[in-house]
Amino acid sequence: MKLLSFIHPHTGEKTWGRVEGERVYDLGKRYCAYFPDLKSAIAGDALPELAQMTLEKPDFHLNDIHFLPVIEQPNKIFCVGMNYLEKRIEFEQTIDAPTLFVRFPDSLSAHGEGICKPVSSNEFDYEGELAVVIGKPADNVSRDNALQHVAGYSCFMDGSVRDMQYTWFTSGKNWRKTGAFGPWLVTSDEITDPQDLTINTWLNGYLVQNDSTHNMINSVACLIEYISRFSPLAAGDVIITGSPGGVGKKRTPPLFMQEGDVIEVDISRIGRLVNPISALPARALQ
Amino acid sequence: MKLLSFIHPHTGEKTWGRVEGERVYDLGKRYCAYFPDLKSAIAGDALPELAQMTLEKPDFHLNDIHFLPVIEQPNKIFCVGMNYLEKRIEFEQTIDAPTLFVRFPDSLSAHGEGICKPVSSNEFDYEGELAVVIGKPADNVSRDNALQHVAGYSCFMDGSVRDMQYTWFTSGKNWRKTGAFGPWLVTSDEITDPQDLTINTWLNGYLVQNDSTHNMINSVACLIEYISRFSPLAAGDVIITGSPGGVGKKRTPPLFMQEGDVIEVDISRIGRLVNPISALPARALQ
Repeated sequence: MKLLSFIHPHTGEKTWGRVEGERVYDLGKRYCAYFPDLKSAIAGDALPELAQMTLEKPDFHLNDIHFLPVIEQPNKIFCVGMNYLEKRIEFEQTIDAPTLFVRFPDSLSAHGEGICKPVSSNEFDYEGELAVVIGKPADNVSRDNALQHVAGYSCFMDGSVRDMQYTWFTSGKNWRKTGAFGPWLVTSDEITDPQDLTINTWLNGYLVQNDSTHNMINSVACLIEYISRFSPLAAGDVIITGSPGGVGKKRTPPLFMQEGDVIEVDISRIGRLVNPISALPARALQ
Repeated sequence: MKLLSFIHPHTGEKTWGRVEGERVYDLGKRYCAYFPDLKSAIAGDALPELAQMTLEKPDFHLNDIHFLPVIEQPNKIFCVGMNYLEKRIEFEQTIDAPTLFVRFPDSLSAHGEGICKPVSSNEFDYEGELAVVIGKPADNVSRDNALQHVAGYSCFMDGSVRDMQYTWFTSGKNWRKTGAFGPWLVTSDEITDPQDLTINTWLNGYLVQNDSTHNMINSVACLIEYISRFSPLAAGDVIITGSPGGVGKKRTPPLFMQEGDVIEVDISRIGRLVNPISALPARALQ
């Protein structure tokens, strides 16, 4: 089952729904009293019921909607750095424990929406990643049980302002609308092994990252065990699991994203996240 | 004016109020329809009116209440590392830009409440810090105007799990209830120069940190300019401004906090934050 968050094309209101092929079913309309957004539907354990639902007339065609980030306001977004073997070699990383940073929700962008390159940055880099959406509260959960706490998986483009990233990553990873999240989540019943997915990133149609989630250093299950040991996870929380090698910073010559570029992340069994790069204009200080 | 968040001693409900000497005035009771918590009162620009209010009979004595973290659910908590000259020398830090990490709200503890040392940690360190609470939205604000966006100042004990901190700080700084925040905020009209405060930390009555906020590398105003350039700040957001030198990790021999210890942070013109160290028990994985 594919679930997404979007803007209603007629009312302009935020809603959420299900996708089948190119048909979109507005579930926010049907469930708004109980579940105004996808996060609350996940928290309310509504996904099994939704999977059983017989859907009749679709509400929209996929082309008619504006996407929102799959989860628009996660309480916690943990991001993992240096989690693929090739990337670790590129960055000469030697520590095995997961390296974590945090994104705030206002750094998220939706499928089809512009990812904002700050005008001040000369090193705006791409990182295609697998996103994990937590389904059930996870507090000190073992890796053996961890995947039972996952609602589903999505694609993520972790746009990185490398020229501000040298100091523990927070500033280079939290510019407004630099992290694209979508187009939808595929529920975990359809992806029983998240370590067997192909992940590709294209910049202007040119393949720049190509790997398998099999090559993660810390698997999704290990990450949930590690994080939930110190910080409890709740429904709608997100773990961004790190990027394969091939990023622009480590190419010769370096390859960074510019206004007008198109960046795409495709993960097998999930789908393709597509975003144009737009400019976040320089503004006078207030 | 001193404002605080606390638990009502009779009803057990969360509320907020004002402190004068040892008298506590329950403002949540008076304003609950409009401002259920201190964050909403700040966001609603209620502080000037509160400052004019004539307070008659106090509701409680300070000894009768259980404190809450000054702001219990900030949307963003930015923490600054390596922001005092002496600390930078201790840690051989060479980068001038603010180094930032993030705390989640469930890592906060209140004045008087136990700070939880994970049983698995052998290096639970103290860091006394000045906390800044944002009052008005700050989006791309210059350092010249930055302090107009501050609601007030408080003390912070940034309990640090050093043996998990080597990887970009997120895991070492986000264990449950490791960051004490209180006892109250002193509104910014009473602290016109946040760079002229004495900050002292005591472990079991022994002075372990002693410095002035004058020795910050990046002043409060500079931090607000730097952060608000990439990430907009809102009322109730918090900036923890970094710790002076003298932390336990860099002492010979090292000096870490143990269960039963008492840690105190005192900042001139604000007050003293006192916390016992309790153990966060080891638990079986779920």
